[in-house]
Amino acid sequence: MSRTHELSAAVRHYSWDNSQPPTLEIEPGDSVIFETYDCSDNERQRDGSMVQRQIERLRPGHALTGPVFVKGAEPGDTLVIEVLRVGTGDWGWTAFRPGGGLLKDDFEAPFFHAWDLSGGATTEFLPGSGIRVPLEPFCGIMGLALPEPGQHSTIPPRRFGGNLDIKQITAGARLYLPVGVTGALFSTGDCHAAQGDGEVCVTAIETMGQPHFKFDLIKGKTIKAPRLATGRQASPLGQQGYFVTTAQNNDLLEASRDAIRFMLDYLEEEYRLTREQAYILCSVSVDLKISEVVNAPNWVVSAFLPNALFQK
Amino acid sequence: MSRTHELSAAVRHYSWDNSQPPTLEIEPGDSVIFETYDCSDNERQRDGSMVQRQIERLRPGHALTGPVFVKGAEPGDTLVIEVLRVGTGDWGWTAFRPGGGLLKDDFEAPFFHAWDLSGGATTEFLPGSGIRVPLEPFCGIMGLALPEPGQHSTIPPRRFGGNLDIKQITAGARLYLPVGVTGALFSTGDCHAAQGDGEVCVTAIETMGQPHFKFDLIKGKTIKAPRLATGRQASPLGQQGYFVTTAQNNDLLEASRDAIRFMLDYLEEEYRLTREQAYILCSVSVDLKISEVVNAPNWVVSAFLPNALFQK
Repeated sequence: MSRTHELSAAVRHYSWDNSQPPTLEIEPGDSVIFETYDCSDNERQRDGSMVQRQIERLRPGHALTGPVFVKGAEPGDTLVIEVLRVGTGDWGWTAFRPGGGLLKDDFEAPFFHAWDLSGGATTEFLPGSGIRVPLEPFCGIMGLALPEPGQHSTIPPRRFGGNLDIKQITAGARLYLPVGVTGALFSTGDCHAAQGDGEVCVTAIETMGQPHFKFDLIKGKTIKAPRLATGRQASPLGQQGYFVTTAQNNDLLEASRDAIRFMLDYLEEEYRLTREQAYILCSVSVDLKISEVVNAPNWVVSAFLPNALFQK
Repeated sequence: MSRTHELSAAVRHYSWDNSQPPTLEIEPGDSVIFETYDCSDNERQRDGSMVQRQIERLRPGHALTGPVFVKGAEPGDTLVIEVLRVGTGDWGWTAFRPGGGLLKDDFEAPFFHAWDLSGGATTEFLPGSGIRVPLEPFCGIMGLALPEPGQHSTIPPRRFGGNLDIKQITAGARLYLPVGVTGALFSTGDCHAAQGDGEVCVTAIETMGQPHFKFDLIKGKTIKAPRLATGRQASPLGQQGYFVTTAQNNDLLEASRDAIRFMLDYLEEEYRLTREQAYILCSVSVDLKISEVVNAPNWVVSAFLPNALFQK
């Protein structure tokens, strides 16, 4: 007899810490409708300013809702999280600053962009631009407490999940996480209304979330790292083809940087975007693929810009 | 008044060398139906053995058909190659050996697999397995002569193209290459009947090719690296969702290795493939994506296995 629970964001935590008391206890088979704050703990305002009422709390990491204690979960098991639906806030934002992100040395000033998410299926990038980003929301952070005691940053993803930022964990997907502690202790947050593979500028379309997840347990099944099964539905972004820039380097990170730089060149030339706007658009909708990693010494990374963004 | 030319593989070359005499001269707007030998210069036999009649010629690189001299092309221009169609041979092969490929230290013996390509749309991996790989042929090598004199290996891709191994350069795509020398001097070869993003084991489904390319010239347009526009048709592989393994590392190459190793684990467990068979299947159909490259110190690389391979 499975149940549906609701869990508000009234109590939030800011690090992975297995001593964090559970805010909800569920049975395998149950589902939970979470409320999540955005990655800034809802500090960020539509004009780009920060409330800063909790600035010292902001530092250690993202605002997470949870943890949820799953009865019967023990280290060595696998927790299955089925994504039933992910609701978003009615607006979101994307921002970067010098020193952060893939192109950390390329920009000299911080940049902020707000998105109107009230329209439903898509959001227009700039008024009148005709550039529309389809909303494919997912939670950037879905993770379990670590077996190691103490507070651990929410920034790096880990074996037990966390800040995975895998854009395909949208409605219809199933995420598999290795359980590290009794009760699994699942938390989530950092909802993204859209993101490209890579999340190159360091933020996606950041927003509040209302994810609805169903939890199941595979007893005695141990996996080495997170796995997922995507939904069967193809993304609307893949339906119209792509414009692609490529870069070559023996270092995949440098190749990624150049592929994005070449895409910024293209977006500036072709769509008259500023370089900052182009970088924002890449972070929310351009996909980085490893085309080949065997033709020494030059690996190829390709950046895929979906034509579907520009359909009137 | 554009023309269609045919260019056989009777004359082949094995390095990038701008002193290589052209085997065909065309006008912009013309198209060429090429015959290409496979990457082994057709030395490889269906049983895995090599003819070895030209073993010393095999060493320097792939067998290329061309070069084609495009009238009016000068350094600083961009050559546009539109892929009208890519025909393949009636069989192909995939192989790896210790010391090569992404997992160069994971295997102790060479391995060879032959594929029957006579069936048209798909090829079955192992008789009775029900694992069918859709054929989406493209030329692994499409490139132009370098401005630098002398012989240059065909193995690494370069600014002027070459061994790009970008699987999306199938029929309907347009490849843009910077012109480095008068006449552009385009050559092609290394046809792949199917490949995953990454080409992880070092070979795809290697086969003879019959690519039909149309050539156009953009005068005075200089690009820094190859670009492409994919076809508008979505790949059949994306239609049924994916099973995905993930790995985290500060080095994208190591993350790629682990993502593939975790996929090999899965294919062994779930489909009872040997580890070698699983590696072959990854090389021809699993896509490596950079999920995030900003959550320091752990970047996420994901390996996407298409469910469409397993549809009866």
